Amino acid sequence: MAAEVFESFHKVRPFECDYYGHVNNAIYLNYLEFARMEVLEKKGFTLTELKHSGLLLVIRRIDITYKWPALAHDQLVIRTVLKEHRRVGATFHQEILRRSDEKLLAEADVAWVVVNPAGRPVAVPEAMRRALGMG
Amino acid sequence: MAAEVFESFHKVRPFECDYYGHVNNAIYLNYLEFARMEVLEKKGFTLTELKHSGLLLVIRRIDITYKWPALAHDQLVIRTVLKEHRRVGATFHQEILRRSDEKLLAEADVAWVVVNPAGRPVAVPEAMRRALGMG
Amino acid sequence: MAAEVFESFHKVRPFECDYYGHVNNAIYLNYLEFARMEVLEKKGFTLTELKHSGLLLVIRRIDITYKWPALAHDQLVIRTVLKEHRRVGATFHQEILRRSDEKLLAEADVAWVVVNPAGRPVAVPEAMRRALGMG
Amino acid sequence: MAAEVFESFHKVRPFECDYYGHVNNAIYLNYLEFARMEVLEKKGFTLTELKHSGLLLVIRRIDITYKWPALAHDQLVIRTVLKEHRRVGATFHQEILRRSDEKLLAEADVAWVVVNPAGRPVAVPEAMRRALGMG
Repeated sequence: MAAEVFESFHKVRPFECDYYGHVNNAIYLNYLEFARMEVLEKKGFTLTELKHSGLLLVIRRIDITYKWPALAHDQLVIRTVLKEHRRVGATFHQEILRRSDEKLLAEADVAWVVVNPAGRPVAVPEAMRRALGMG
Repeated sequence: MAAEVFESFHKVRPFECDYYGHVNNAIYLNYLEFARMEVLEKKGFTLTELKHSGLLLVIRRIDITYKWPALAHDQLVIRTVLKEHRRVGATFHQEILRRSDEKLLAEADVAWVVVNPAGRPVAVPEAMRRALGMG
Repeated sequence: MAAEVFESFHKVRPFECDYYGHVNNAIYLNYLEFARMEVLEKKGFTLTELKHSGLLLVIRRIDITYKWPALAHDQLVIRTVLKEHRRVGATFHQEILRRSDEKLLAEADVAWVVVNPAGRPVAVPEAMRRALGMG
Repeated sequence: MAAEVFESFHKVRPFECDYYGHVNNAIYLNYLEFARMEVLEKKGFTLTELKHSGLLLVIRRIDITYKWPALAHDQLVIRTVLKEHRRVGATFHQEILRRSDEKLLAEADVAWVVVNPAGRPVAVPEAMRRALGMG
């Protein structure tokens, strides 16, 4: 069964561009994070609530490939899909495309785990597993 | 008696520049905040410890004038001096200068208050008053 | 005749919050800039085109008052209105409100001028004057 | 022959921390970029000069692993070393450590290429090859 694809939208803001006129490489990670937060929210979770229940989502690894620069005023779509999952976390595959022509600007694998306040990985809560399609 | 002047140093990083090649206007506020933190630390306070003791320093107003753009690789000095103080807070005057020629790039008045976790202004702790020269 | 009020919308992203859980004071300037860019675009101008025609919009002064913190996930509206204008620039008044209850979180006066590549103020182009209602 | 190791230093600024109190994942990319710029500068190059000569350094891929969170006020060292090189670019290996105990907080492989203004990869200039030890 195909995994659910989530879409988030963003229009590039001039201050996100560096002195090359391109969106700075670090800003793409802001876009990816924003899109992941939207996935969680659409599924009924917020980081704030998770934190109150003593759980943090932390990023373990990001492997991002930059294919084509995003420029000021570009309309972007960020697509997020579950790629793999483990007991304590999962990996999302995320793509950033230009909406006008669906050109792929960047893609990334983002691995995250759930940890307790001591920083120790713990099992992903069952409600979250179900919501995100983690088998 | 002249107020104590604190100096902080920063070299402009390329990603802080926007697509005009100038440091973006919002980044100057990062510089000012960084310099204020250094003042507190030099005087023996950290925001983390203050937070643990139930106090937050929050900004009430910033009035900043941009005189000349900071550019990538510029060496900057940020000067911070106490300008006024009240029971629950104070105003710092801060200047950002280019080190090579002492040219004034920006200056700001930054008013802050101490609040409790409910967001209610409370008296500045006595130790902090003394450390910052708040009469 | 009442000045035109422009509205921009933004939902606070978690990474915009600092370790107090509040939107960091510098991020508000990103919001204000983003809203000003939207005003220009709605009126048919982009910073990129202006730059190609040899003109830059630069900020001279920002006087911002922080009234109430914006928090992660808050839905915001940024209202921008022309307050004053001069031959070489103008001042916008901008307000940031929480959409759920129209609470005013911050307000600012932002003064800007048009400069040529040498950084010298020049007259605001007539088309821009007309578009922004600059008398 | 062992490759040269470059060191850059940074003290975490409170506004770089997100609402978990950790340095946000995107900010690590700012640290890595800042360290790479320092390597270039130590070797006599600046991005501004390269741009004037019609060349841009662009990032193709970043593979970063987050091992342990950096916190406000942490003193960091960023170590940069040439890992691989090709005709049109190279890959740096970069590590971010906490200075107090040399704990490895994050490490990354960063692949970059030199492009002309049209975005087409071109040979790394000979002077830069020599300076960076690219065989």
